[in-house]
Amino acid sequence: MSRFAPDPAFLTTSHPVGDLGLCHVRLQDDARYPWLVLIPRLAGLREIEDLDGPDRSRLMEEAILAGQAVRAMGMALSLPVDKLNLGALGNVTAQLHLHVVGRRPGDPAWPGPVWGHSPAPALEGSPLSAALAAARLALGL
Amino acid sequence: MSRFAPDPAFLTTSHPVGDLGLCHVRLQDDARYPWLVLIPRLAGLREIEDLDGPDRSRLMEEAILAGQAVRAMGMALSLPVDKLNLGALGNVTAQLHLHVVGRRPGDPAWPGPVWGHSPAPALEGSPLSAALAAARLALGL
Repeated sequence: MSRFAPDPAFLTTSHPVGDLGLCHVRLQDDARYPWLVLIPRLAGLREIEDLDGPDRSRLMEEAILAGQAVRAMGMALSLPVDKLNLGALGNVTAQLHLHVVGRRPGDPAWPGPVWGHSPAPALEGSPLSAALAAARLALGL
Repeated sequence: MSRFAPDPAFLTTSHPVGDLGLCHVRLQDDARYPWLVLIPRLAGLREIEDLDGPDRSRLMEEAILAGQAVRAMGMALSLPVDKLNLGALGNVTAQLHLHVVGRRPGDPAWPGPVWGHSPAPALEGSPLSAALAAARLALGL
């Protein structure tokens, strides 16, 4: 099996946060939502069923932790999280990845899904730094 | 804690398939996609983090099984599954539930998400019976 590397598509749409036991974590570059992307650090994965049993449980626990981090990012960005949205789609970028998005009533895509909704305004400068710091603290990175 | 019952919103949009160890399983009433919905059979849940550790692992395993059932439904409906989409949103119906949807390039919402895309043509008659039978066989129900 070849070595893991995040699909190049992620490099233009997100910022690296760090690595958990299973997943490489990235912060989606969208100023409208606190949003993390978990990418299991194994090559050749496309579906969650491609993970073995222990790694499936690990993905679940890292998704829960990412939800807590998204709430912390929401506090840092003044984008309070009322509902977590989890999604593993992969229709555009096939490499297995899980989105964890913080949603609130009245956000731009509410109550529909964020994926494919509209172009993302970039998260830059001190809000980006604050979101990255909040995410890393919550993830223990 | 009050007793579990599926939110009434599910009753108008889906058909009951049966109960797994954790989840009540429903077949989404949409002729365009093989699509199951898993609803953990515990009252008062809103986020995956509301489940305890063993039930989180159980949800993961039932989601994998549901993916296999969705592929079987796709065969029965001549809607071949190229990619599974998993989503836990709950922005409209807050009761914790997980969508498992079979997607293929060129399907009506491809490559965007199915949620909120467009009104669903009903799945009726013998295709509905075939999909239910395929789902139950794959789920061991």
